[in-house]
Amino acid sequence: MAYEVIEVDPSSHARTGKLVTPHGTVRTPAFMPVGTCGSIKGVTPDQLRTTDTDIMLCNTYHLALRPSADVVAEFGGLHKFIGWDGPILTDSGGFQVFSLAELNRIDDDGVEFKSHIDGAILTLSPERSIEIQNKLGADIIMAFDQCPPLPSTPEFVSDAVERTIRWAARSKSAHQRPYEKRSNQEGTGQKLFGIIQGGLDTDLRLRCLNALADIDFDGYAIGGLSVGESHEEMVECLNAVAHHMPIDRPRYLMGVGMPRDIVAAVRSGVDMFDCVLPTRNGRNAYAFTPDGFLKMRNASHKLDNAPLDSTCDCTTCATFTRGYLRHLFQAGEMLGPTLTSIHNIRFFQRLMSRIRQLIPQGKLERIHEEFPVTAHCAKAE
Amino acid sequence: MAYEVIEVDPSSHARTGKLVTPHGTVRTPAFMPVGTCGSIKGVTPDQLRTTDTDIMLCNTYHLALRPSADVVAEFGGLHKFIGWDGPILTDSGGFQVFSLAELNRIDDDGVEFKSHIDGAILTLSPERSIEIQNKLGADIIMAFDQCPPLPSTPEFVSDAVERTIRWAARSKSAHQRPYEKRSNQEGTGQKLFGIIQGGLDTDLRLRCLNALADIDFDGYAIGGLSVGESHEEMVECLNAVAHHMPIDRPRYLMGVGMPRDIVAAVRSGVDMFDCVLPTRNGRNAYAFTPDGFLKMRNASHKLDNAPLDSTCDCTTCATFTRGYLRHLFQAGEMLGPTLTSIHNIRFFQRLMSRIRQLIPQGKLERIHEEFPVTAHCAKAE
Repeated sequence: MAYEVIEVDPSSHARTGKLVTPHGTVRTPAFMPVGTCGSIKGVTPDQLRTTDTDIMLCNTYHLALRPSADVVAEFGGLHKFIGWDGPILTDSGGFQVFSLAELNRIDDDGVEFKSHIDGAILTLSPERSIEIQNKLGADIIMAFDQCPPLPSTPEFVSDAVERTIRWAARSKSAHQRPYEKRSNQEGTGQKLFGIIQGGLDTDLRLRCLNALADIDFDGYAIGGLSVGESHEEMVECLNAVAHHMPIDRPRYLMGVGMPRDIVAAVRSGVDMFDCVLPTRNGRNAYAFTPDGFLKMRNASHKLDNAPLDSTCDCTTCATFTRGYLRHLFQAGEMLGPTLTSIHNIRFFQRLMSRIRQLIPQGKLERIHEEFPVTAHCAKAE
Repeated sequence: MAYEVIEVDPSSHARTGKLVTPHGTVRTPAFMPVGTCGSIKGVTPDQLRTTDTDIMLCNTYHLALRPSADVVAEFGGLHKFIGWDGPILTDSGGFQVFSLAELNRIDDDGVEFKSHIDGAILTLSPERSIEIQNKLGADIIMAFDQCPPLPSTPEFVSDAVERTIRWAARSKSAHQRPYEKRSNQEGTGQKLFGIIQGGLDTDLRLRCLNALADIDFDGYAIGGLSVGESHEEMVECLNAVAHHMPIDRPRYLMGVGMPRDIVAAVRSGVDMFDCVLPTRNGRNAYAFTPDGFLKMRNASHKLDNAPLDSTCDCTTCATFTRGYLRHLFQAGEMLGPTLTSIHNIRFFQRLMSRIRQLIPQGKLERIHEEFPVTAHCAKAE
């Protein structure tokens, strides 16, 4: 297989592994920074490499609208277009269609919606999403799913599950560039992951999971969480579902999340995460530390000669003080968001690295001492 | 001396030299990118180093207002505060006071003005400007001058010249950290440059020049150009004035400029330049090339797989296409300004590097073939 579980936590479902892709190997549990429109906002690929990031995510919905999949394909695909030669995952566009766009019509055929950019009427379907993702050329692509908001009625969630299953089968059939392993190589083509829906209903989740496993995907994702439910509800769902996902395939929790969400999900057996938090918070002057957030606009940092995080080895912490970063935000300088985003991404990668170290030692609970922010709802200083 | 003329152009007043400062040596003719508020907008010090920049400029006016000279001094001075360990020059604040602030009063004592940030009433004087610049700790600091706009009446320009001369003497007296050469070392303290005013009146310029030379500065600047006059008027003034400036001191043309301004000024004998053009144009999606500007928002770049400039060796051109840069600007991504600013700064440094190569060969006129943009008023494609 092109996914290998390396070690398992004796006291939870956590595991470490490696996921081989045509553009390199991803160490799991892995965190994927998000480059929505084909760039991690304010962070160059060179700067991203300094954070020890293995894989990044790009959003199919945004790229399909602008510059379009055909344009990206003209440049030889996403890797060449955006200048990142490491692994890339594209989502299916489903989540964005249901959260960003104005929906005109949804039926089994697909979704008709208005572009949030110019109001143009567009459609997405399993076939169209996979066609776009084939053109974008990411290493991992996602089946097109229906993501119901939470809370939704049981009927609505159930209908979304059945449609997601039908769309998953069509997504797989539509996939024109399936991944092929080559011996002693990273392989070619694109891995296709299925997305499990079902809201907070364990039975629906398992129904969806088993149906997708029958279709057989290169990996499986849990979608439709972190959409309004509490942390406890999310963890309960993960604990009931994640360890039932095929043990020999990567398990990806989409759009999550806060450090404590990630650690809880790792315990439940999840291998992959993506979230805009490091960069969105970075732009908004929130810096992650093991103890919580620093609000960099606070006057308390005015004369603070310390780095954002004295335990951090990122390029920002190696050079710049809290006082300077506060000044940059006060003055509206672009470097404030850039430097804080680099730090925040590195913070998430340090967290993942430590998680990967602690799992085989059976000492994952120590992450809460080393990163207290994983033990509570992250608060600002 | 801590400034050494190395080679002279046999057919013009152009010369190459090296200017030793406590934080390193500046090769002249030199271009200084501008970090108004203590950062080159969107460009980290690491990225700036890749452009082969020897020295950057910071604005005393902006830094004095925010975060204040005392705050910067608390962090050990500008170099440590902003994370740039190369040479830095600070201007005197005079130009900004006369162009950005709302003036309340100007007399021989100094200038009372309203902060453009919060409307606070502040004063600058020769003593106060030098005190602030002593605290900021740049390698080169500037005497406080009165910069008249162009056009102004002869009487107004003449009064400004006489006041600038009086203020120059007071600036030198106020300087608490004069530069001291150490044998075989880069020296300590701060070099102080005088600023020559006089508008387009050659007699007034020479009057100011001679008076400042009598005071004896570490270098001399021409201020009050690029403030509304034509290119031809500026060049005529430079040709009449620059070669009369002390031959053994660096000559700095403040706030200039466009590539053709720089080449003309180098011919007249100028050694140093600063301008916001590379970064301001970069943020506005204008990329410099030897032939002129590229407007990166133009639809013509949509499928363009070429780098911004096929002759350029910058990190942007090494990795990214015009098509991707256009996409970044269309999508409002921060990387568009960052990557274009890096390229534009490198463009200016490549221009300066080639100028430094051609001067000793007596072939400076070849710069117009290699960089046609230096021969005309730069136009967009």
